[in-house]
Amino acid sequence: MVNSIENAFLPLFYLVWSDDLLTKEEFTTLDSFIKNQSWIDEAEKEILLKYIDISHPPTRARLIEWKATIADAVALSPETKSLIDVMLTLAGNNSVIKQHKPAFKKLENDLGILGEEAFNFFKKSIDTFTSNHHTESCFDIAKLTNLLDGSEADIINKVKEVISRPAFAYETSTDVITYREKVFEWCKILADENLGNMAYPKEYGGDGDFAGYFAVMETLSYHDLSLVIKFGVQFGLWGISVQLLGTEKHAAKYLRDIGTLKLPGCFAMTETNHGSNVKGLETTATYNHATQTFTIHTPHKNAQKEYIGNAAMHGQMATVFAKLIIDGADYGVNAFVVPLRDNSGQTLPGITIGDCGLKMGLNGVDNGTISFANVVIPKDNMLDRFASINDKGEFESPIPSDDRRFFTMLGTLVGGRIGIPRSALSAAKSGLSIAIKYGDRRRQFGPDGGSEVPVLNYRIHQRRLMPLLAQTYAMHFGLQYLTQRFLARKEEEIQEIEALAAGMKAYVTWAVRDILQECREACGGKGYLAENRIAALKNDTEIYTTFEGDNTVLMLLVAKNRLSVFRKKYGKLDAKGIIDYVVDNVSTAITEKNPIATRKTGDEHLLDRHFHQQAFEHREKTTLAAAARRLKSLIDDSLDAYDAFNVAQHQLLDVGRAYLERIILEQFNTAIDSVTDEACKATLTKLAQLYALAQIEKNKSWYLEDGYMEAAKTKAIRKMVNQLCWEIRADAVPLTEAFNIPAACLVAPIAMK
Amino acid sequence: MVNSIENAFLPLFYLVWSDDLLTKEEFTTLDSFIKNQSWIDEAEKEILLKYIDISHPPTRARLIEWKATIADAVALSPETKSLIDVMLTLAGNNSVIKQHKPAFKKLENDLGILGEEAFNFFKKSIDTFTSNHHTESCFDIAKLTNLLDGSEADIINKVKEVISRPAFAYETSTDVITYREKVFEWCKILADENLGNMAYPKEYGGDGDFAGYFAVMETLSYHDLSLVIKFGVQFGLWGISVQLLGTEKHAAKYLRDIGTLKLPGCFAMTETNHGSNVKGLETTATYNHATQTFTIHTPHKNAQKEYIGNAAMHGQMATVFAKLIIDGADYGVNAFVVPLRDNSGQTLPGITIGDCGLKMGLNGVDNGTISFANVVIPKDNMLDRFASINDKGEFESPIPSDDRRFFTMLGTLVGGRIGIPRSALSAAKSGLSIAIKYGDRRRQFGPDGGSEVPVLNYRIHQRRLMPLLAQTYAMHFGLQYLTQRFLARKEEEIQEIEALAAGMKAYVTWAVRDILQECREACGGKGYLAENRIAALKNDTEIYTTFEGDNTVLMLLVAKNRLSVFRKKYGKLDAKGIIDYVVDNVSTAITEKNPIATRKTGDEHLLDRHFHQQAFEHREKTTLAAAARRLKSLIDDSLDAYDAFNVAQHQLLDVGRAYLERIILEQFNTAIDSVTDEACKATLTKLAQLYALAQIEKNKSWYLEDGYMEAAKTKAIRKMVNQLCWEIRADAVPLTEAFNIPAACLVAPIAMK
Repeated sequence: MVNSIENAFLPLFYLVWSDDLLTKEEFTTLDSFIKNQSWIDEAEKEILLKYIDISHPPTRARLIEWKATIADAVALSPETKSLIDVMLTLAGNNSVIKQHKPAFKKLENDLGILGEEAFNFFKKSIDTFTSNHHTESCFDIAKLTNLLDGSEADIINKVKEVISRPAFAYETSTDVITYREKVFEWCKILADENLGNMAYPKEYGGDGDFAGYFAVMETLSYHDLSLVIKFGVQFGLWGISVQLLGTEKHAAKYLRDIGTLKLPGCFAMTETNHGSNVKGLETTATYNHATQTFTIHTPHKNAQKEYIGNAAMHGQMATVFAKLIIDGADYGVNAFVVPLRDNSGQTLPGITIGDCGLKMGLNGVDNGTISFANVVIPKDNMLDRFASINDKGEFESPIPSDDRRFFTMLGTLVGGRIGIPRSALSAAKSGLSIAIKYGDRRRQFGPDGGSEVPVLNYRIHQRRLMPLLAQTYAMHFGLQYLTQRFLARKEEEIQEIEALAAGMKAYVTWAVRDILQECREACGGKGYLAENRIAALKNDTEIYTTFEGDNTVLMLLVAKNRLSVFRKKYGKLDAKGIIDYVVDNVSTAITEKNPIATRKTGDEHLLDRHFHQQAFEHREKTTLAAAARRLKSLIDDSLDAYDAFNVAQHQLLDVGRAYLERIILEQFNTAIDSVTDEACKATLTKLAQLYALAQIEKNKSWYLEDGYMEAAKTKAIRKMVNQLCWEIRADAVPLTEAFNIPAACLVAPIAMK
Repeated sequence: MVNSIENAFLPLFYLVWSDDLLTKEEFTTLDSFIKNQSWIDEAEKEILLKYIDISHPPTRARLIEWKATIADAVALSPETKSLIDVMLTLAGNNSVIKQHKPAFKKLENDLGILGEEAFNFFKKSIDTFTSNHHTESCFDIAKLTNLLDGSEADIINKVKEVISRPAFAYETSTDVITYREKVFEWCKILADENLGNMAYPKEYGGDGDFAGYFAVMETLSYHDLSLVIKFGVQFGLWGISVQLLGTEKHAAKYLRDIGTLKLPGCFAMTETNHGSNVKGLETTATYNHATQTFTIHTPHKNAQKEYIGNAAMHGQMATVFAKLIIDGADYGVNAFVVPLRDNSGQTLPGITIGDCGLKMGLNGVDNGTISFANVVIPKDNMLDRFASINDKGEFESPIPSDDRRFFTMLGTLVGGRIGIPRSALSAAKSGLSIAIKYGDRRRQFGPDGGSEVPVLNYRIHQRRLMPLLAQTYAMHFGLQYLTQRFLARKEEEIQEIEALAAGMKAYVTWAVRDILQECREACGGKGYLAENRIAALKNDTEIYTTFEGDNTVLMLLVAKNRLSVFRKKYGKLDAKGIIDYVVDNVSTAITEKNPIATRKTGDEHLLDRHFHQQAFEHREKTTLAAAARRLKSLIDDSLDAYDAFNVAQHQLLDVGRAYLERIILEQFNTAIDSVTDEACKATLTKLAQLYALAQIEKNKSWYLEDGYMEAAKTKAIRKMVNQLCWEIRADAVPLTEAFNIPAACLVAPIAMK
């Protein structure tokens, strides 16, 4: 039986022998401590020193015995809170030891032991708030689903019913041909259900319902994304290019068959050498007045059409973009319908089709290359809404500039830049549903002596997923707004809406890339298995940041549009322009940017949506004005404008992002205003707060550099983000359930109950 | 023929009709401008207004004619620099118009036209510095390769020769079984070349050369990463676990056959329910003294071994981690050799093996699940270096604590955490080689009238890739350092090196994830095609952030290790601890953090490595002290230590990152010091500067919050990063060529000459 002094040392002995973070140095510390205590007699010292004899470590059994002794002492005195208290209890509150409490405290420090922390090792069970946090829904899930679906609920539910049928069971073969055929079969079922032709005019079998078409794209995206893209190529890019770039004769001739998938087709714009800079396409369409035909030709290998969906296997025709040549003169890029295959699937003379082969994702889509060797098509095959050739063989167009005509044509196809981010966001919703449900169930580690804790209770896991959940909700409402603006567009709004669509496409698909990346990592090894679908979601959406316009190029376009609008309002930001600008922005410049506002850190202020909105607006306006000023000063320094824009690219991206974030937050808050259900409103409000503060946090170096906020405030925001993550965690699973993703689509075993 | 006033307006008319960014509003502006000019007579006004009649736009031919007229005027006066000058030239320097120059300037502003920018439209050819930038190597590539390869050059070159052979042509089948068999064949060739057993003792066919083994792993990683992982499982995890956890009898019995791949095996640690928290493994190994055997058993479905490489097809044995039970008592996790299949490949009785199926990547590795139904193995199969059972059937171990013993066992396997980041970095080198070579050749957009420009000349493209190239070089030297520390480790350094390896594994694999993501996007559609290999590189390395320890968990471990070291030095950061800390850090605290230093923005200062090093150290020390203080204050507020660590997780990750970045920068600079070739040294120095400044920029909100830098300085750093990116771009292709990746491995068509 050990005596009271030995007993007092027991916790320290136990810790140095058991904790894998302690090394031999600690033994030296203990050794000199023991030797230097004058109140311990030599015999006792000798006994104590035996405990730390490196050549004679305690046996495993002894270590267990020590621990039991200590744990018993802890259990006996529930009021005990620190290691020192335990040591005193073990020493029977020996008054001499009590007297030397400071020395023991110092020893603890010297050993690097945090007494209160180490104390936990000896508690028999632990009741921590980290352990006790859990899912509890505080709103009605069905009501929130209704809010998300809005007026498109019927078509959304119809699509969900179709894609939940047994025929839509995911293809698991790794054989690309098998996969492509399965996707084609699925497209046929959707065509049979009249879901493909939804946007076409009634007289050609459609419904004239663009809103419905977008809802179909979005809902299909809970299923296989190859299906979505194949579907979008056929009914969107191919069909809608015929509908909007062609005239009545084209619609009458093709649209019904496109809608039923009797006539599979392609959208052949991109060439190997020209992807982003499509104005530079090199395929030619040479007009021959004698025969009333065009000759479509690929001048060299790198002018071949590339990445063309539906080309490698199924496409029978294509909308081909080519430079129109009349009498040796170049009339810019126009669109033509060109047959590729007969209806037995045989490639036609002059057409050479290559297969893009295996891709990172979307392997159910048959992307291919197309080359034309002097392929002759009738004059009527020119899609002639914006330009035509008259009976005399002369070029005619209501739009005199070739560039402007081409961009007007592209502008009519802006719907693709709405469908794509809406599809991407569905993929993010699937990913978050899987990762959050898994995080709620997966347990790993826990307090010493307690059971393991759901990983979603860990702050860092919340930090990884909760802001992304909030952003997903925010983007949902942002995309609803974009869709509504597009559907109700007026002539004079078109350029604004085109820029908004370009920006939303870039912002959302980048966000989705990051969301799915985080979901993959948050699910660990399980997230790497194909059965849990995050791999497919991630790889399939990976190209969303590139196609329908490379995101970087689009963001620069958005910035240029914003600059153009800005310049029209304030001129070149000369002296007068700056004054106008400051006056217009007086609320942020004067009211907000003062020492009291920049330091305000109260909870109420931090959660106040007016603070969020003003901060976002201030950033939007300031980045824009700064970019304009910078461009002006570069050009004033006689830099070529092209070089000046190049030098400022980094700033221009910021202009685009700040603009989009302001719009998204604004639309999220606007949507919340119209919510009547209090519980839903409260939950959405919390998400909007998290979205706002998480973006401010992400941009905090900008706010600090600008002087809009001081360090005390950005630090308070970080804490508030943590707090909101913690609170939303309880609602996280119900918030993913509100997406109402069909179980037949979600399927990931780790997300199933 | 138009008169001089019409001529003066021509550029504006041209721009409003051709620029797709202008709308009807501009016509109103022009209309009222013309009407308000008193010096223009009514007849002339009428003529001018016809030019902007919306119902009668100019024909395409007329627009072209205008442009030609304007361009001729520009060509005639080479000194012309702005739109106004062109207008005056066109007007024959009409003195009345000259007089109204300010009014025209204002009109330009009102139209949102930036005159100097618009002027470019009319130049016939453009000579911009953006266009003229190009690759020019200013160092000897072979010399840099030698510097990177160092003393392992021979083995590196040998491996490169082997993997460049025709037998190593990449497998293109999507059939998983075919792919796995191919990878197994490759492993056999490598075994035959004595590359697998390199680290084993000479008496068992090896070379005792761990350094060589790491170099093999790194070099193989230019090839298929499934091969690397399969190779690592067999020769590393399986072989080295037998070598280091077992004793002589195990080495003698198994090691030679493992090294020749006659005995394929697995490393069966992870279970479905326990991945990160392996201390909680549930598989049992129950000792039966009567029969001198262990019974290996899987108690429930979620205690099965999961993700085990080599299990689904080829493994014949496995190192199995299981809780040792003797007489009903639990002795913690130990390791056992368990046969899985006979040498005909037949699964043995009691063993159930599942296939993990398709994964996001690494599909050439046969990952599987393993369950044991009371599988009996002889007593000798216990890998008994750290614990054994004596003749009396009693447990014996030199390490009394079960936890500590287990972590010591894991510690001996820390080599995996060196091999993995070195493998990942090779993948990043491949990705950067492909993306940078493509960026140097791919041309898109260009100045008006000029030819298209290599995308790598765009600042944003440089911003995306150059800092990653610099980081890759930095991490290369960081990993060299880690390897050297590991190879020369002393007993008392082990915990530091284990933490360093854990941190480097996490830091590097996260960086590689980001690098390959950026490479994919930077290559656009080409980056999505399997033939260009970025897809495989990205998907194969995706799991590197999870296996060999989840990165987040590892970073938290690093932070805890740093805290422990810190506490031992400064105690609990009470009053005295803080004083000690400040004194030790006097150079940053007093010398650096003063108004002059925080505002210093001169080029020489910004490029000075002492500034970089001090900034990194300051961040490292301050984040550490702050985390320690925060934990203490949370615990003082009577939070449970477990909860306190949870609350501070976000800060702890920062502690880990700051520590690793300091080490990496330090080692990069140290490596540069020993370079004798001046040209190589200059290039590497520029990379080190970019690495340092790009990390400071990434962390600038921290520096601003801390007060270590003011906004003027962080803004100057942003500019310097841009400048370094621009400069390094010229060397970027040669810098990737210095990696000397075999052409047979790189293969991506977009990276080939």
